[in-house]
Amino acid sequence: MYIDLDRNSSQPLYIQMAQNIRRRIRSGALPPGTRLPTVRELAQQLGVTRLTVHNAYSDLQADGWVEATVGRGTFVSTRQEAAPIPEYGREVSPRSAINDMMRMAQLPGMRSVAMADAASEFYPLREFNRVVDEVLATSGVRALAYTTSQGEPTLRNAIADWVRERGVRVGPDEIIVTSGVTQGLALIAQILTQPGDVVLVEHPTYLGTLNVLENQGLRSISVPVDDEGIMVEVLESLIFSHRPRFIYTIPVFHNPTGVCLSAQRRAALLELVERHRVPLVEDDIYSQLVYEGSIPPALIVDDCSGMVLHVSSFSKSLLPGMRIGYVVAPPPLISRLSAAKQANDLCSPALNQQAMALFLQRGVLAQHLRRTLPRYRERRDVLLDAMAQYFPATLRWTTPSGGFSVWVELPLGVSATDLYLAAIERRVAFAPGDVFFAMPSARSYMRLAFSAQPPETLSEIAQVLGELLHIQTHRRKVAMPETTDWVPLV
Amino acid sequence: MYIDLDRNSSQPLYIQMAQNIRRRIRSGALPPGTRLPTVRELAQQLGVTRLTVHNAYSDLQADGWVEATVGRGTFVSTRQEAAPIPEYGREVSPRSAINDMMRMAQLPGMRSVAMADAASEFYPLREFNRVVDEVLATSGVRALAYTTSQGEPTLRNAIADWVRERGVRVGPDEIIVTSGVTQGLALIAQILTQPGDVVLVEHPTYLGTLNVLENQGLRSISVPVDDEGIMVEVLESLIFSHRPRFIYTIPVFHNPTGVCLSAQRRAALLELVERHRVPLVEDDIYSQLVYEGSIPPALIVDDCSGMVLHVSSFSKSLLPGMRIGYVVAPPPLISRLSAAKQANDLCSPALNQQAMALFLQRGVLAQHLRRTLPRYRERRDVLLDAMAQYFPATLRWTTPSGGFSVWVELPLGVSATDLYLAAIERRVAFAPGDVFFAMPSARSYMRLAFSAQPPETLSEIAQVLGELLHIQTHRRKVAMPETTDWVPLV
Repeated sequence: MYIDLDRNSSQPLYIQMAQNIRRRIRSGALPPGTRLPTVRELAQQLGVTRLTVHNAYSDLQADGWVEATVGRGTFVSTRQEAAPIPEYGREVSPRSAINDMMRMAQLPGMRSVAMADAASEFYPLREFNRVVDEVLATSGVRALAYTTSQGEPTLRNAIADWVRERGVRVGPDEIIVTSGVTQGLALIAQILTQPGDVVLVEHPTYLGTLNVLENQGLRSISVPVDDEGIMVEVLESLIFSHRPRFIYTIPVFHNPTGVCLSAQRRAALLELVERHRVPLVEDDIYSQLVYEGSIPPALIVDDCSGMVLHVSSFSKSLLPGMRIGYVVAPPPLISRLSAAKQANDLCSPALNQQAMALFLQRGVLAQHLRRTLPRYRERRDVLLDAMAQYFPATLRWTTPSGGFSVWVELPLGVSATDLYLAAIERRVAFAPGDVFFAMPSARSYMRLAFSAQPPETLSEIAQVLGELLHIQTHRRKVAMPETTDWVPLV
Repeated sequence: MYIDLDRNSSQPLYIQMAQNIRRRIRSGALPPGTRLPTVRELAQQLGVTRLTVHNAYSDLQADGWVEATVGRGTFVSTRQEAAPIPEYGREVSPRSAINDMMRMAQLPGMRSVAMADAASEFYPLREFNRVVDEVLATSGVRALAYTTSQGEPTLRNAIADWVRERGVRVGPDEIIVTSGVTQGLALIAQILTQPGDVVLVEHPTYLGTLNVLENQGLRSISVPVDDEGIMVEVLESLIFSHRPRFIYTIPVFHNPTGVCLSAQRRAALLELVERHRVPLVEDDIYSQLVYEGSIPPALIVDDCSGMVLHVSSFSKSLLPGMRIGYVVAPPPLISRLSAAKQANDLCSPALNQQAMALFLQRGVLAQHLRRTLPRYRERRDVLLDAMAQYFPATLRWTTPSGGFSVWVELPLGVSATDLYLAAIERRVAFAPGDVFFAMPSARSYMRLAFSAQPPETLSEIAQVLGELLHIQTHRRKVAMPETTDWVPLV
């Protein structure tokens, strides 16, 4: 079976392959019941990795085009019905990094440190089931009806109590419930910007935010970060030159670097946004995940100007799939955010909100954190130890005191993509650093998220990556000239 | 207690009132424990309706600012903590009609036909609980983890089977799961338009859609509808003059009118969008709610051009609070919609999606419709009979064979707003027609949704409205000149 693949396309090979096979199935060229080549055969024939073929087949299987029978092979599905191929619309390759990571992380046998995700084996599944049953028993149909766009009052009250622990003293009318931090950011961008506007982000930053901004036609301009967080002295000149609509920062356990904003920078940043009256969006999602030392206070706590919007969620600390986050902001902004939310998805599911409210009221989240933090700390320590043991001695990486990620600067001449592809072949997935930059970075990085893998796997992963790094560093040593890089190591 | 109210403001009086009281509480002018005037006292003093005061107090109570004790009165909450009043941001009054309707419908004692909403007493609460327990037992933590932006494959498969009943033959890769129709429309607008673009909508149309378009800075231009649906002959000239990015239509059991697109118009509409290559978004949300006759086929069934995007949800037919809808479109568009969804809220909750998939696979939805349709039909018949009995003989309204709404043309000179306010005083809420128009309408209308009230209440409501209509028609008879209206009755 010959398949024409465009290796220069921005579309991954496995997608091209799946599309091609789908087209053949639809056209009747591959009738129902046809046996497809084995993964090994097709990989060899087309000169691609087996993983690529495996991904393509998984896709086709997930969508019902093919069926796999263990020991027999992969067959064109017999229950598939032909549908016409429409011609409308231009093909746009989505910013696929997040998708790829999710995909990789889910492949059978993959040892992934790509997703900075809570460990699913820690999810309080039974408690969640109990709470859901209780909500349905007590609230009844109200839990399955429409609710307000701003969010269930009971949950907003519980969130107000929760953020008070972090020093944030607000009432429920200063809170809107969102579908995770992503929706919080998307709504903020909707009310504060027009397409073409500039938003300042950190260099590097959370790739989901870049995705949100790009989708709304905004220009992301990067502000460098070092081991004290965002470089406020550079920030001011960027405010002058770009007149940004807002600044996005992750001041505590920054993603991907794990760094915290220093006290001095913190004061300077607050002073700066007050003076220039630029809204500052602080993403506080990792702040509860602290392994030692004290957590720096949220920026909004000392904001006298009303310029700070505080965004967070329970996706990292508890359960990502509930899709519950929140924005804390002055009431006039909350009212505009609620109007925007109404025009985005009307409201979030009441059931999920009420369940989360019970979790907070009963102290389940606090208890859950007490139980899980030591285990996350252990994972971090195991990974850092194994990195020290297996990685080339010249490499530098961060030592986060919280959050889920270690940020590794790769040796000059080692490309994150090459390393990534080599790692995938060894069944190890990480997040290549490039995806976290709004603007090109002179150096290559990788993010290793230790949260979702057990200690022994983290050790294996570090060993595999160490071997690959030694090989690639050796191979490239002579080829690349030394360059000076304006991005400090973080 | 004197409160300065601006009656010309677009902000409702009760919100102004609540804000004023909140400010006083925060400033300390109303210390904790202070007894507020009774609803009756304050209404009299300020010359507003008691409902306005009641709404303001309810708001304050929901947000924890005041506490009500039955028989004792309303008091400033003692557990309230002071928070600074930020000055940031301009006050924007959201398009508040949906909010107001939701609010009115939830006020105690209110008999509301304002929301075209499934009857909550029909919600399959126990089945839902069973299915959720089953999903948690079988899928475990996967039901609480992140899932793909396009939606759970199992649900997309089940939706593909479901829409096949409607003649729509597509595979799961031609489907994206959204948070209701609202998110489907919001994502479509994001991928097809830029701010300032024109979208053609029906006159009248679903106000939620107007809200979505306005939020994205789009201009809605109206196409008249009559008792055969959208007037295709007018549509073509509007396509020429406005070059719309897409057309939005509700061809079956149109909201708010209840009308179906005729077979002839349907063919002409499909031919038109194919010829002009304008995307056509069909909102099919009410099509399952049929009380007699056959359901016209979905437009997408006979679309040869790939121009039709088919949007629907289970909010009307089953449960609104699950927040599950879907878009059916050609794969290239689905891929762009998925990228947009990822940049809006990452993904919808896996648990809700898996529960909905089980509902569909097990035939619970089909069974639920068999059980509820006769009851909705009864409600429609009771309302129509009572209207015939109590309403002035000169009035005209639609007789829908499906959906949830009756659309009433008010007598010349009777304002929907006046009628609305008078009705609210009698504890009856309906949807004033104005909110369904993108452009001013020469005539006034009201929408009566019979779905969510038991027959006896519908009868009472018709009686109250009938009395008010007789009064208002009589009062205004002389005042208003006859005008000719370009909008045909629908």
